Amino acid sequence: MIKNKTILNKFNAIAILPHTMPDGDTIGSSVALFLGLKQLGHKAYIIIDDQIPDEIKCISDGHITSVNEAKNTGLTFDLCISVDMSDNERLRERQFFADTAKLWNIDHHQTNTYFGDLTLVDTAASATGEIIFGLLHAWGVTLTSEIAEALYVAIVTDTGSFKYQNTTATTHRIVADLLEVGIDTEKISRSLYHNEPQSKIQLHAVCMQDLAFYQNGKVAVAVVSQALLKAHAANMLETDGLVEKIRDIRGVEMVVLLKEINDSEIKISMRSIGAVDVSSVAQSFGGGGHKNAAGFSVKGSLQLAIDTVVNEVVEKVIL
Amino acid sequence: MIKNKTILNKFNAIAILPHTMPDGDTIGSSVALFLGLKQLGHKAYIIIDDQIPDEIKCISDGHITSVNEAKNTGLTFDLCISVDMSDNERLRERQFFADTAKLWNIDHHQTNTYFGDLTLVDTAASATGEIIFGLLHAWGVTLTSEIAEALYVAIVTDTGSFKYQNTTATTHRIVADLLEVGIDTEKISRSLYHNEPQSKIQLHAVCMQDLAFYQNGKVAVAVVSQALLKAHAANMLETDGLVEKIRDIRGVEMVVLLKEINDSEIKISMRSIGAVDVSSVAQSFGGGGHKNAAGFSVKGSLQLAIDTVVNEVVEKVIL
Repeated sequence: MIKNKTILNKFNAIAILPHTMPDGDTIGSSVALFLGLKQLGHKAYIIIDDQIPDEIKCISDGHITSVNEAKNTGLTFDLCISVDMSDNERLRERQFFADTAKLWNIDHHQTNTYFGDLTLVDTAASATGEIIFGLLHAWGVTLTSEIAEALYVAIVTDTGSFKYQNTTATTHRIVADLLEVGIDTEKISRSLYHNEPQSKIQLHAVCMQDLAFYQNGKVAVAVVSQALLKAHAANMLETDGLVEKIRDIRGVEMVVLLKEINDSEIKISMRSIGAVDVSSVAQSFGGGGHKNAAGFSVKGSLQLAIDTVVNEVVEKVIL
Repeated sequence: MIKNKTILNKFNAIAILPHTMPDGDTIGSSVALFLGLKQLGHKAYIIIDDQIPDEIKCISDGHITSVNEAKNTGLTFDLCISVDMSDNERLRERQFFADTAKLWNIDHHQTNTYFGDLTLVDTAASATGEIIFGLLHAWGVTLTSEIAEALYVAIVTDTGSFKYQNTTATTHRIVADLLEVGIDTEKISRSLYHNEPQSKIQLHAVCMQDLAFYQNGKVAVAVVSQALLKAHAANMLETDGLVEKIRDIRGVEMVVLLKEINDSEIKISMRSIGAVDVSSVAQSFGGGGHKNAAGFSVKGSLQLAIDTVVNEVVEKVIL
């Protein structure tokens, strides 16, 4: 296995490829891997094809190369490593580099398609950061504060600050080791949590006030129209985290969020707790997802979706 | 020290005393201590003089005796243990039992007054739950799932789910041990986090929409009037967590929350991040607190407080 450093030594120039729409786990894991490989004497680059969200820039600054920059400067690689990526469609533009190199797929998602020449998929890991922690340890990399902070961000974001069911004793033991190396948790907390745009806060507040409830409060429905976004100078990305907040209301077992993407497309996101399965509802509308988090799209106006889809969804889930 | 079990054996009937306005740490620690002492063959009771919040009842149900019930049934004790209590004023009615027993003060607050006949104060512990974990271990108590769940609630609530600066490598190692015993984290998450009353959510949403900002958005001011509470069928306890949400807005370094207790009393709570010290402002108004969390009260109407206090507070903190 590639955990053996002598095999790794066959590769000189290595491209680390986070997934598109990057999050804390893919970037934190990539930065830790990047710093570890550099420490071992490799030429390493993190190549992205998307923007890094503001709240995780504190760990990635100075370590990132855009796909255009990499192409323009004529970079070539012996090995590409996809990080936290469940399928190779998320390589996009970076397929160009993978085509002439070995491709190593490191991930923790149950939906991983086992693409690539080499795979290291551990679905028991709460975050890809846990897997990278193990690799760096096996390779004898010294954990610096910078590596520890990157892995901490990877794990803390993918576990919802250790609240999600994927959090295990191993997760906490790894984080204990990271904290012992020395992490500026105040800097990271400020960046991750004290960083909500005012427009987002206002958008969520309005949505929380205008919730509709069904089935004795067990189902809550929220609607984000283009008009609402405009009124609060917000964008659709800022609905991020809204369904989770609604799900925290006492008695709510299922949340339906309708997002007006444009005049003729409505995206519906659903979340549930416990035994309530929203993926089967999503599938019946041509969508997909997991038991407690799923979604689908419908064509037509927002009003049509409210009038038809909501009732169907609410009826299909017997609580 | 009383960590030695032979000394503990001098005491037969033991009263465990959580602090008033109980939280997850005082109740979780008390329940774990209660179950541990019972396992060792002691007669133990948890005596409270207040209501247990709904969200932590999942660990305390069946283990609690009210102070009135204890008095009415004529219970007497050899040893009283105050748990997570910084001063003995929080014993209130239960002083009655402490007067004729040894009093042991187990706590982690830096403000502990070292009252009682015996003290075990460890300010490095993130929660009193960490101290109880150590005691039960020293006494050879077998960690059952029930004990592990109680300690988990104690630690997860007092560390803000491992986000606060008090969280250490030791905290994570203890939690790893607890998870290995077996904890129903889904049940606990549902109880702790998916349990916000709708009235509270609506109240927070309205407050978030009506925030006033000063000093280029560095200071945010929120107001909760009695009229607002009435309009949303909410109570003042439901402002809990509101300042923390406001503090999460990007750029906000200080939050001021004015609460109209009644026609002639206004309570002002302040929170800050980083270097901003709100305790000195609170002290100048006759209040107190810590660097990043402090408060005070003023006499007069809500409007008077908004007109005078807010400006003074905002001016005093140069950001």
